[in-house]
Formats: sequence, C-alpha cells, structure tokens
Amino acid sequence: MKNVKIFALSDSIGETSEQVSKAVLEQFDEIDYDIKLYPHVKTRKQIDDIIEDAKKENAVIVFTLVVVELRDYLIVKSKTHNVTSVDLITPLLTPLIEHIGLKPKREPGLLHKFDENYFRKMDAIEFAVKYDDGKDTRGITLADVVLIGISRTSKTPLCMYLANKNIKAANIPLVPEVDPPEELMKANAGKIVGLFADPEYLNRIRKERLKVLGLRDNASYASLDRIIKELEYADRYIKKLGCKKIDITNKSIEETASIIINWHNDIAKKERE
Amino acid sequence: MKNVKIFALSDSIGETSEQVSKAVLEQFDEIDYDIKLYPHVKTRKQIDDIIEDAKKENAVIVFTLVVVELRDYLIVKSKTHNVTSVDLITPLLTPLIEHIGLKPKREPGLLHKFDENYFRKMDAIEFAVKYDDGKDTRGITLADVVLIGISRTSKTPLCMYLANKNIKAANIPLVPEVDPPEELMKANAGKIVGLFADPEYLNRIRKERLKVLGLRDNASYASLDRIIKELEYADRYIKKLGCKKIDITNKSIEETASIIINWHNDIAKKERE
Repeated sequence: MKNVKIFALSDSIGETSEQVSKAVLEQFDEIDYDIKLYPHVKTRKQIDDIIEDAKKENAVIVFTLVVVELRDYLIVKSKTHNVTSVDLITPLLTPLIEHIGLKPKREPGLLHKFDENYFRKMDAIEFAVKYDDGKDTRGITLADVVLIGISRTSKTPLCMYLANKNIKAANIPLVPEVDPPEELMKANAGKIVGLFADPEYLNRIRKERLKVLGLRDNASYASLDRIIKELEYADRYIKKLGCKKIDITNKSIEETASIIINWHNDIAKKERE
Repeated sequence: MKNVKIFALSDSIGETSEQVSKAVLEQFDEIDYDIKLYPHVKTRKQIDDIIEDAKKENAVIVFTLVVVELRDYLIVKSKTHNVTSVDLITPLLTPLIEHIGLKPKREPGLLHKFDENYFRKMDAIEFAVKYDDGKDTRGITLADVVLIGISRTSKTPLCMYLANKNIKAANIPLVPEVDPPEELMKANAGKIVGLFADPEYLNRIRKERLKVLGLRDNASYASLDRIIKELEYADRYIKKLGCKKIDITNKSIEETASIIINWHNDIAKKERE
C-alpha cells in the first residue's frame, strides 16, 4: 500500500478540493490516502508554511483560491520548491468568464453565504429529522417526497441526502404487523416512493446491523423468511398505493437519491407548467 | 440578470461536477444559473444528444469522465459543435498519475462504492437522527461529539453535517427551565461543544422561524430579553462544564463544522499517540 498525501488548500473551507480529490484518488488501487484540509488561507505566510510542510511530507497541494494574487504566489512558490500543486478553480473559471462575459467577484467563501437557499436547506434538514421513521404522520402531507419501505431500505439516509438538496422528505416504515398511516392513501401518489431490495441483500445488511447493535439473539429480524414476508407485504401495499418504486440493491444513497430528485424535478416542472 | 446554463455530465452521479460548478458560479454577480445533471453517461449516443441540447440552450458542459475513450470523444465532438466543455478530472488526475507512479483504474462510480466507510457514514446519520434534540441522553456517552446550545444555534444541521463526515454527533438543547441531563457533567468535556450567537442574530432568526411556523403569538420566544436570559444561562452552564465554545453568528454550517472537525481530529490524534 502506497500512502498518498493531499493538502487541500482553500480561501474558503476546502470542501470542493476535498470532493474532487476523493473522486480522483478513488481511481487508484493499492494506495491509501490522507486529505488534510487547510481552510481560510488568506496570507502569503500561510502558503509558505503549507508548501514547506508539503515538501517535507511529499504531499500534493490541491487548491481553490479565488484571489488572483494569492493563487499566483502559490503557483510560483510551489514550482520553486518542486511541490506539485493543482488549481481546481481556474480551469473552469477561465472558460466561464469568456462564456458569461462578466468579471468574477473573486471573493472567498461565496458558496457558503446566507441566502434564502441556505435557510431552506436548514429547514429541510430539520424537517427530515422531525418526520423520520413515521414519528409524526403529518409529515406525509407536508413533505415534497415521502419514502416508504421495510427496515434497512435506507430511508433515513436518503431523506437526509434529499434534505441537503432542499427537498423536504419524510419516511414511513412498512411492517406487516402495523397498518400504515391513513394519510398515505390520501396523499398524492406521485410524491411517494416505495423502496425495496433483494432479500439476500437485506439479509446481509440486517445481520450486520444486529452484530453492531449486539443483538445476536433477535434472529427472526434478519432471517430470510421474515424478510421475504415483509417484502411481499410491502410490495402489495406499494401496488395498492400506485406509487413509484426503486430497487436499492447495490445502489449507493447518492445513486438512489439522484433518481428520486429527477422524478421530483419532473413533477415540480409539470406543476409549474 | 443573465441566465447561465451548465450541463454537468458524469459517468457516475455528477456530484463532483455540481459542487465545482457551484463554487465557481457563485463568483459571478448579476447572473442566475441552472445546473442540469446528466449522470451515468456511458455511450457516444448519450454524448451526442447532450452536445446537441447544449448547443441549442447555449450551455457550458462540465464533465467528470474517467473512461478515456468517452472523454476524448466528448472533447472532440464539443469542439466540432462549438460548445464549451470543461474536464474537471484530468487536470488533477494527470499530475497524480505522475506523483503516485501508478495507473488509475478508470472505472466510473468508485467514489460511491460500498466500503466500511460507507456503512460508517450511514450509521452516523442514523445516530444523529436518533440522538437529536436530547431525545435519548444515552447519546451523550456514545457520541464522538456532543453539541449543546439554546434554540436556533443550528445544533441539528451541524450534527447532520458531521454525520456526513463519519462523526457520530448528538445534541442537547439548553433551556433555563429544564436541567441539562446529568450525563453531560460525567462526559469527557473535550468532546462537548457549546454553541452561542449574538442576541440580535438569534432574535432575527427566531422571528423568522415563528413566521414560518405561523406562530405569531408566541412572542416571548423571539424577544431579545428572553434570548439574553437564555444565553446567560447557557454561558454559565458551558463554563461549569469547561467545554469548548463557538460563536455561530454569521457562520455557515460548513464553517462551524470545519472548526469542530479540526478539534475532533486533534483529540482523536492525541488519543492514538
């Protein structure tokens, strides 16, 4: 295993550098990597120190600096010290300046400003927490998207991911022994999504879950028979509702969420028309 | 207002393109923008269609394609059709290949694979939901980080953000009329963070909150007197605990979280040593 060190340097918080670095580093086998964040870089002195450390630790510098003077200083300095440094902003900023025909502001931290969008996102996150796991069925009426499914079909993480994209999402568990809330039948089926998965997949995940929780005795929860029974029950109910459904087997949260977001956008677009 | 259209094209889900595009677009005043995602692009036909649409809508294509053949096809095709296209992967991948001395796998979707890390993140999100708002005080012992603060100091969104970074975070509300759970005094103060803000700032946010909730009558919650009383109470308690504290006034969730993550990493590093 080769260890790769990345220093992600930013005049804001460094999230963009981190995201791009991860996407690229995952392309390599046989390495492990550390990404060290250097947020709020605003001075030449900070850059000097970081380059010195990078040289010592054989790290690659990845940066998002919008202030031209600092950016140029970093480029020149890292060349002088033989440190690899990669600018993640300029390759996109330059063609966009030409395309848009306007000058950029070159102020750090604009991605994290407090606008309406920001507060909407905060609201959506609080919404997802409040209406998680059928805790309060009024969420069904208020939500943009309602996820239903049996245990371990990733309802909670999906709702949180949707919240981060400004979508108010509630989720309702389906269990054969408990009737689903009446509100589901009354709601617009277009905003409800039924989640399901391969029984074997859920079997593996539930077993793992029981291990983590230290509940080795609760065997029926993870048994294949029980899971098949739950899935059949859920499938009948989803058909009755007439809502969309997604197989989450081997899909990441991001993948499943991107399908739901596309559906949601299509509905929102039709409603506007 | 000038409208700018970005088509974010990816052989995975397009999250990286979206993040970088947003960071760069926020640098422009007097524009509004749409970012349209084209995930799972795997064929030349898909690329042909997207380029055609981009030409019609005067959109800029931003892409993360790890398969060389598709990437080259897109570059050539967009040039032929006079569509601006920007490669976000190669500028970092090329220097990393040289630095690491290994060949990349060039498989799409590796960022979203199911590894230990992925399941840890799912657990952390469920943890944050379960132990939100002091619902279950056992969370104090189990958490990596515990946030305490009065209403509207962004405890919930912060916990969710930390969960996304694999940190198990619980939060406990501070209210003068209710004694905080005993577990807080027994816990390691190093993992507790007290949140506070300017009274005027909280005043504005709480008023906004009441408006959204349609609770115009509950005036005392948003009154400056009440907020000052709560803040003084919280401050005394935070001092008694001897924990760290952060002023969240005018800080975004990402900024506050990055401070907490740095503290958390320092503690984790010391514990390893």
